[in-house]
Amino acid sequence: SAATSASKTIGLIPADGIGREVIPAAKQVLEALAPSGKPFSFIELDAGFEHFQKTGTALPQETVERLKGECDGALFGAVSSPSHRVAGYSSPIVALRKHLDLYANVRPVASVPGSTGAGSRPVDMLIIRENTECLYIKQERIEADTSPEASPGDQIAWADRRISTRASRRCGRMAFKMAVARHAATAAASGLSNVPSPKLTVVHKSNVLSITDGVWRETVKAVQAEDPSFAAVKVEEQLVDSMVYRMFREPEAFDVVVAPNLYGDILSDGAAALVGSLGLVPSANVGDHFAVGEPVHGSAPDIAGQDKANPIAAIRSAALLLENMGMAQEAQRIYQAVNAVLLEGKLLTPDLGGKATTTEVTDAVCRRL
Amino acid sequence: SAATSASKTIGLIPADGIGREVIPAAKQVLEALAPSGKPFSFIELDAGFEHFQKTGTALPQETVERLKGECDGALFGAVSSPSHRVAGYSSPIVALRKHLDLYANVRPVASVPGSTGAGSRPVDMLIIRENTECLYIKQERIEADTSPEASPGDQIAWADRRISTRASRRCGRMAFKMAVARHAATAAASGLSNVPSPKLTVVHKSNVLSITDGVWRETVKAVQAEDPSFAAVKVEEQLVDSMVYRMFREPEAFDVVVAPNLYGDILSDGAAALVGSLGLVPSANVGDHFAVGEPVHGSAPDIAGQDKANPIAAIRSAALLLENMGMAQEAQRIYQAVNAVLLEGKLLTPDLGGKATTTEVTDAVCRRL
Ligand SMILES: CC(C)[C@H](C(=O)O)[C@@H](O)C(=O)O
Ligand SMILES: CC(C)[C@H](C(=O)O)[C@@H](O)C(=O)O
Repeated sequence: SAATSASKTIGLIPADGIGREVIPAAKQVLEALAPSGKPFSFIELDAGFEHFQKTGTALPQETVERLKGECDGALFGAVSSPSHRVAGYSSPIVALRKHLDLYANVRPVASVPGSTGAGSRPVDMLIIRENTECLYIKQERIEADTSPEASPGDQIAWADRRISTRASRRCGRMAFKMAVARHAATAAASGLSNVPSPKLTVVHKSNVLSITDGVWRETVKAVQAEDPSFAAVKVEEQLVDSMVYRMFREPEAFDVVVAPNLYGDILSDGAAALVGSLGLVPSANVGDHFAVGEPVHGSAPDIAGQDKANPIAAIRSAALLLENMGMAQEAQRIYQAVNAVLLEGKLLTPDLGGKATTTEVTDAVCRRL
Repeated sequence: SAATSASKTIGLIPADGIGREVIPAAKQVLEALAPSGKPFSFIELDAGFEHFQKTGTALPQETVERLKGECDGALFGAVSSPSHRVAGYSSPIVALRKHLDLYANVRPVASVPGSTGAGSRPVDMLIIRENTECLYIKQERIEADTSPEASPGDQIAWADRRISTRASRRCGRMAFKMAVARHAATAAASGLSNVPSPKLTVVHKSNVLSITDGVWRETVKAVQAEDPSFAAVKVEEQLVDSMVYRMFREPEAFDVVVAPNLYGDILSDGAAALVGSLGLVPSANVGDHFAVGEPVHGSAPDIAGQDKANPIAAIRSAALLLENMGMAQEAQRIYQAVNAVLLEGKLLTPDLGGKATTTEVTDAVCRRL
């Protein structure tokens, strides 16, 4: 397979804040992994709000072109948010997802096997977030408010929310596939034949958005009929508000969760609280031909540059990226090394209540590989 | 004041499911309260999905007219959601908020003084949700997808998100006022002079929705300059995804939280998980001249008709309604009775791990008044 036939090239886009610390950490782990003696090559690429402030461009054309032309996959760090409206600035990660048609954002949220993270119960769910539309199409406009009640200068701003059959279908398809694959992996690992059915929770708010979320829920559910292997998946629906509530009350009730873009963004941050820290939760932006690993956390300007950031979300994102590049075994080695460090519990960054540095945790993961 | 000059008329709209049990429970408490010997009058009014199924109308004209013409305030139960798109149906509570211009939804989420609810730490926050716009304007449409990648029959659905200066300003104003009032009440109750400053957290997602959420954040923040008493309020901003995360990690960090409609909907359900049950969390839909109390929970069809629903959210919503009708002392009597029942912990409904019925809990609250 491609995985073993040639050395792989990975684009690295640290972007802002702690992205500049955790992406090098992930790179160090990938270097230490050296799959079958074939080291990875890396290409460093620019993007981010700080890059925008220096150059007027948040996502340089060159970054997109080299990702497309020279890379087998990529890792993205985090972006800082401007504190005021900044003319001409637009989030580079949202743009990147669009340019590379990375239509699903895959976010596994799981406590370390044998531990329960922050909560009292183990969590093991996979959130799949539609990654190209909803309010993220960023079609916004503003106009004067000419209603009789308005004061001089009042405005009305509008944003378009787009939900298409096509985007819902391909995201739903990925969700069903992953539900089946997770189930198969769990069954194989446990050796049991009575592993509970895979379950897919379809999140929406169709009691208010009956047309847009109507298309979403109906399209995702209709995917089940496409493939006989999907028949085993138990499908349930959940309104997004109740979903947040239930996720906190009974996280063990969820397996694979699929949601439109904005709901998925909110849910995955909420789920991160259940496992103890955003610094643990990885994601992969996945398309048909390319994937970009990305920690779910932000650029954390308050701790940037202090060797305090938890590198684990970025390191796990590198593993997720490898899975998507057909290198499941290498990915497993990373997951196991990370879990061993977490279970040992001696080297933890401050977000997990420890005192270890980014460097120390990264070195520890490398030693366990 | 109006509060003591005449008996008050309260509209009761139980709507669907357990709304038909918890609204009568709230009514029973209001009857038992009998403020200064002047009993309330009640008017029973129709609305809901079940009413729609019977009559083709989810919110009868008569309900709106009698609320406007004959009532001093109202209580709304809960609405069931259709499991499929139903032509002509639209949520009656969303419509009611609009018809009565109830522009803020006030949702206090607090653990019982002396207890910590579900979590390990006491929670005491007030979520104020903009209640008239955002995606809740329900302007949606659907069109054929004629793009080259589309399959036959594929569609694209659109929803408009509206954020206006005017709606943001009046909601922001209510948030600042309530932050100041809460602070004054806490200071008075504690007798201390060093009660921490009131704090207002402005929730948005302006890193993606720079124009709509830009108007929201800038307008709400600008309100601070309107009134010298607002100067004491510490204002912070929080992206909605991080907000959900932080709310679970450090709920004690929040005081008053103000959010656009959809974010506020999601946040308040999340916050409910922190205090142990949605069955505890009340809300009031508030306008300049009218308020409608409404428990935050849904119609819970799975337990409807079984005398199992927790009546406390509805009872507290009745108290919130009284506060908004200028009857703060009567409201306090209800809060204290409810807190006493919860602290005693003998009569709890199943959502709180107990075995008591709706009737038993309601009777217990009435006895404590
Ligand atoms: C930085 C921001 C645009 C982004 C998003 O909302 O998608 C982030 O929150 C994420 O979850 O990847
Ligand atoms: C029933 C539904 C339309 C409503 C909402 O989303 O506003 C409910 O969830 C609420 O929070 O009051």
